[in-house]
Amino acid sequence: MENKLKIGLIGLGTVGSGVVKTLKNFPQIEIKTAAVRNLNKKRDVEVNQLTNDPFEIVNDPEIDVVVEVAGGIDPAFELLKTAVKNKKHIVTANKELLAKHGAELFDLANEHNVAILYEAAVAGGIPIIMPIKTALKGNKYKKVAGILNGTTNYILTQMEEKGISYQECLKAAQDLGYAEADPTGDVEGYDTMYKIATLANITFNKRIDVSKIYREGITNISADDIKFADELGYKIKLIALAQDNEGQIDVRVHPMLVSKTNVISGINNALNAVMLEGFPVGQVMFTGPGAGEFPTASSVVGDILAIAAEFGKCETILPMTRCNHKEMAVQTNILDTKNSYYISITAPNAIGVIGVIGNACGKNKINISSVLQKGTQQDGTAHIIVITETCSECDIQNAIKELENQSIKINNLIRVM
Amino acid sequence: MENKLKIGLIGLGTVGSGVVKTLKNFPQIEIKTAAVRNLNKKRDVEVNQLTNDPFEIVNDPEIDVVVEVAGGIDPAFELLKTAVKNKKHIVTANKELLAKHGAELFDLANEHNVAILYEAAVAGGIPIIMPIKTALKGNKYKKVAGILNGTTNYILTQMEEKGISYQECLKAAQDLGYAEADPTGDVEGYDTMYKIATLANITFNKRIDVSKIYREGITNISADDIKFADELGYKIKLIALAQDNEGQIDVRVHPMLVSKTNVISGINNALNAVMLEGFPVGQVMFTGPGAGEFPTASSVVGDILAIAAEFGKCETILPMTRCNHKEMAVQTNILDTKNSYYISITAPNAIGVIGVIGNACGKNKINISSVLQKGTQQDGTAHIIVITETCSECDIQNAIKELENQSIKINNLIRVM
Repeated sequence: MENKLKIGLIGLGTVGSGVVKTLKNFPQIEIKTAAVRNLNKKRDVEVNQLTNDPFEIVNDPEIDVVVEVAGGIDPAFELLKTAVKNKKHIVTANKELLAKHGAELFDLANEHNVAILYEAAVAGGIPIIMPIKTALKGNKYKKVAGILNGTTNYILTQMEEKGISYQECLKAAQDLGYAEADPTGDVEGYDTMYKIATLANITFNKRIDVSKIYREGITNISADDIKFADELGYKIKLIALAQDNEGQIDVRVHPMLVSKTNVISGINNALNAVMLEGFPVGQVMFTGPGAGEFPTASSVVGDILAIAAEFGKCETILPMTRCNHKEMAVQTNILDTKNSYYISITAPNAIGVIGVIGNACGKNKINISSVLQKGTQQDGTAHIIVITETCSECDIQNAIKELENQSIKINNLIRVM
Repeated sequence: MENKLKIGLIGLGTVGSGVVKTLKNFPQIEIKTAAVRNLNKKRDVEVNQLTNDPFEIVNDPEIDVVVEVAGGIDPAFELLKTAVKNKKHIVTANKELLAKHGAELFDLANEHNVAILYEAAVAGGIPIIMPIKTALKGNKYKKVAGILNGTTNYILTQMEEKGISYQECLKAAQDLGYAEADPTGDVEGYDTMYKIATLANITFNKRIDVSKIYREGITNISADDIKFADELGYKIKLIALAQDNEGQIDVRVHPMLVSKTNVISGINNALNAVMLEGFPVGQVMFTGPGAGEFPTASSVVGDILAIAAEFGKCETILPMTRCNHKEMAVQTNILDTKNSYYISITAPNAIGVIGVIGNACGKNKINISSVLQKGTQQDGTAHIIVITETCSECDIQNAIKELENQSIKINNLIRVM
């Protein structure tokens, strides 16, 4: 027999509404109260009781589980800390809060013996947190990588399919509601960064300092970059990456050229994908909708039902989901990483420029893997694309500086997956 | 603090060895005894204690969890029933046993309040059972489909890449150890059938009669079929499918033409994939290694660790994983399904044959979507490929009979995804 579980919902926007609609199929769960900013706003869902004071929820002794889908740090952090101290289990979709203050929250949760679940915080509807904590628990990871932001993936896919600029695409995405009026959080890679911080945390069992994650967004990707990458057999994707680097963890977010033979290159539009590589499993990949009312609600409701199943029956609810590591990861500086690079170059004139590029690379121990010269422009300039073999980030930055000192314009430098 | 868990391992072949090697990283788990057929066989793993009587394990009062990776029905069924009656939790990779006798086992497990976990029984290393039971628990499914057998997928991929026949490919796969000496279980679709029975069971929450699952293997797929499918924009895959058909469940296994625009078409060689479609999640897909020592061990060890985490701490261990449905599904007969079809036809002479085909289809309410006539052969026969629009299986079977009555040879009839 299942105990009837009382939940308090903080946030009744897109995701919150999806949660309310989905929970209609689960009479063993009761939404006692939902906290909203504006009590008078018209909504397409009904809840027993509304409040505009979310602290009412986290302090309500009748509420067993606090479901936070409001986002942001303030007041979410205070709210969840209070809820945990009041011995309430937590379900949250708040990737920023987990990335920045997860350590404190998880320690507090252990102290008060409550579960904090956050399936919806990474990759929307794709089950990824729970599989890592359960079915894949026997693995030691080498790498986790993926496409974790639907907005940027939509923009890059549309740029490619329509051959248009980033700015045009962003505008279209905003008109369709796929990008926010202030798109910074998505297009500059912050959202992706928060998510990879959480994934790195649970795959490598170390705490990640989000301020040390190298981050580049997609705003510098040009229609030309996408076209040239395509000619060379690649697509450009905003990739989140965390990999074991001899005991250090190399965590970063930046655009990458992904070979068309890699399935990640085929993850288009608002889809997300997470690839895990470890022992003994080898490589597994999960794909699906990374955002949206219902996919995100699927993950939130899955977490609520997981708590409901054990609530009142176990001294420790869902022990597998608890955070038992406290050690900070040593994070690799981007300058200490090795990568293959795409360099888009404009040179003042075509004659001898390949030699100049070759020299700058050679002097910095960089081997060139392929070169694509896109004819000579009417003004005499040459547009050249270079793909390097694997070399150090330090060396490539030195080579770039040298080329720039010789009046060679570097349009873009993009890492290759 | 975790209790030390004692397990008994039945089977020390490929998967069993992988489990022993993987468990070395988890000192909280002790393998007390392993049951093997031949005590004197040389092995690359060591276990505390070997026995050739697996009943010793299931009757050992010190053993908490029985891990069965031996396969087959006899004696596995008896062994696991005894283990459950002795209140041992079960981890099994035995898809055939679950498909044929799961109902009885799960009822018995509920009666004795033990967990039966079987992540490794479907899609090897891919986490799919636990995600359906946890993170995706809030969903009502419309469809589950996938590639669940690595051997047949390897053969089909190689046939396509090398343009060679099924027989040649099978031989090569056997030489490489990818196919067994008697390949029937794989190539005739039995293995896939057992797996989709389990997936259908847990996604639709109804019990599946495995004897009512329509099943076709890949032995009739010719190099020509693969070539023509390719020309028309498809790949041929052995697809397992379970879908809601107005309250009935349509469960089947057969080859299908899969459009190259569908990601499932890109799942090659020994990889497996499972696609789930439901509300609220939409579509999610999981891909990874469907077999092998270490991927399968990953799933077995995940299940063991899940039990270990709650062992001795909860009156009911892992309540979310229990089977709480007893209703038998009403399964749709293949003749009552609707599909689009690929028909490969050889006609005695080219003249008028398109008309004859068109008539047979028209009379049976079948619309033709595309026709590909592969010239006229030297002997005057014509090879024609027809793709139909969606029509009923009954109608297509009638049309086929009519064509055969007119001396038109049907080389193959393959459904289109």
